[in-house]
Amino acid sequence: MSYCVALQLKSGIVFMADTLTNAGVDNISHYQKIHNWSKPNERQIFLLTAGNLATSQSVISLLSEEVDDDSVENILNIPSMFQVAKLVARILRQTISEMEGEGQEASSKFDVTMILGGQIVGGDMRLYMIYPEGNFIEVSEEQPFFQIGETKYGKPILVRAYDKMMSYEEAIKLLMVSFDSTIKANLSVGLPLDICVYEKDSFEVSFKERIDKDNQYFRKLSDLWATRLKDAVLDLPNFSLK
Amino acid sequence: MSYCVALQLKSGIVFMADTLTNAGVDNISHYQKIHNWSKPNERQIFLLTAGNLATSQSVISLLSEEVDDDSVENILNIPSMFQVAKLVARILRQTISEMEGEGQEASSKFDVTMILGGQIVGGDMRLYMIYPEGNFIEVSEEQPFFQIGETKYGKPILVRAYDKMMSYEEAIKLLMVSFDSTIKANLSVGLPLDICVYEKDSFEVSFKERIDKDNQYFRKLSDLWATRLKDAVLDLPNFSLK
Repeated sequence: MSYCVALQLKSGIVFMADTLTNAGVDNISHYQKIHNWSKPNERQIFLLTAGNLATSQSVISLLSEEVDDDSVENILNIPSMFQVAKLVARILRQTISEMEGEGQEASSKFDVTMILGGQIVGGDMRLYMIYPEGNFIEVSEEQPFFQIGETKYGKPILVRAYDKMMSYEEAIKLLMVSFDSTIKANLSVGLPLDICVYEKDSFEVSFKERIDKDNQYFRKLSDLWATRLKDAVLDLPNFSLK
Repeated sequence: MSYCVALQLKSGIVFMADTLTNAGVDNISHYQKIHNWSKPNERQIFLLTAGNLATSQSVISLLSEEVDDDSVENILNIPSMFQVAKLVARILRQTISEMEGEGQEASSKFDVTMILGGQIVGGDMRLYMIYPEGNFIEVSEEQPFFQIGETKYGKPILVRAYDKMMSYEEAIKLLMVSFDSTIKANLSVGLPLDICVYEKDSFEVSFKERIDKDNQYFRKLSDLWATRLKDAVLDLPNFSLK
């Protein structure tokens, strides 16, 4: 499993993903799950993946290979983010159905869910979630973030504390708390974490960092959060047995 | 789905369960998920169920029917909690395999997971989790609580804030926070909530209450928790973009 989140803010989008992949507990490795295609001053496109690694890599490779051929529609020449979402969704669906058609049993084990975000000049910043079935949805005022992979542990804190006016610094902090809760509860999500920030209308990667287990800030945050959370529960009025 | 938790404390066990059951979003109803068998001053046995309702009801009925026949081993005459766990696990496995054998496709859809807790005179207080496969595990110092059903949303707060020296009042508060996080994030878990407290060596139900949507304490707790959680995140030092 993986855990990836994209938070849409007023000022931009913050992406975070873990890097652990596993096929059983005895076969773990680390892969980047945030992928980026760009044309300076024209477009920045981010794609986050959760699910079957072979499917993810195949989709990423197909998208990247096409980039060199300007005679076909590809991720770097399509005119809108909506068209990019349609392209990625089509390739994802095809990849899964090819794998399922190749004599393997038809199950969900080739499935990948994706988050696609970014901006193309002349259009607004966009954020989509793409399902393995090849359809996709966009964020809204009411649903201003997307999670994929192992989403449940880290959802309550996002539901409670997200605010679209947050700064990037606050949003990254909130995401780290959400990832920390997930990592503490689930073996299949793990450090290092990748962070990417895209600032609206900048058409560049505004910030990028990898947080590993020696990161002092993350360790401090995790310890502080444990204390604060415990204190916050203690502070609440007790139930009365009457 | 359901959400049920049993917290083992130094002084006793606190059980909490939601009451919502659903077969699709258009077919919801409410059922009690905490079941209790007792012999005054001799034994108190609690059974919590999550999963297929027909399977749960069948197991509960079989356990209850046997009680009247003292010539067979039943939940009210078996000499130890371990033997009770074996009995319940055997009936659960048999019920599932009968249903699966009756011409329906063999899938996990008849599955039920259970939490069994209580005490029989002459023995210690015990707490088990029983799997649909018919095997079971017991709590330990390192794993002092069991959750079944929709467990992920409410786990991080339990992991962080549980302490076996907690009072019942504190434990119920903590469980309510865990349930509130789950209810906020998942449609299939809902009020009212049932609470039962068993105090070690008491051989009686020490406390029992149903918390419905009009419960002033739960509403206040939910509001306060939203604020405290948000404040706790705000209070943490922000990430620095350097």
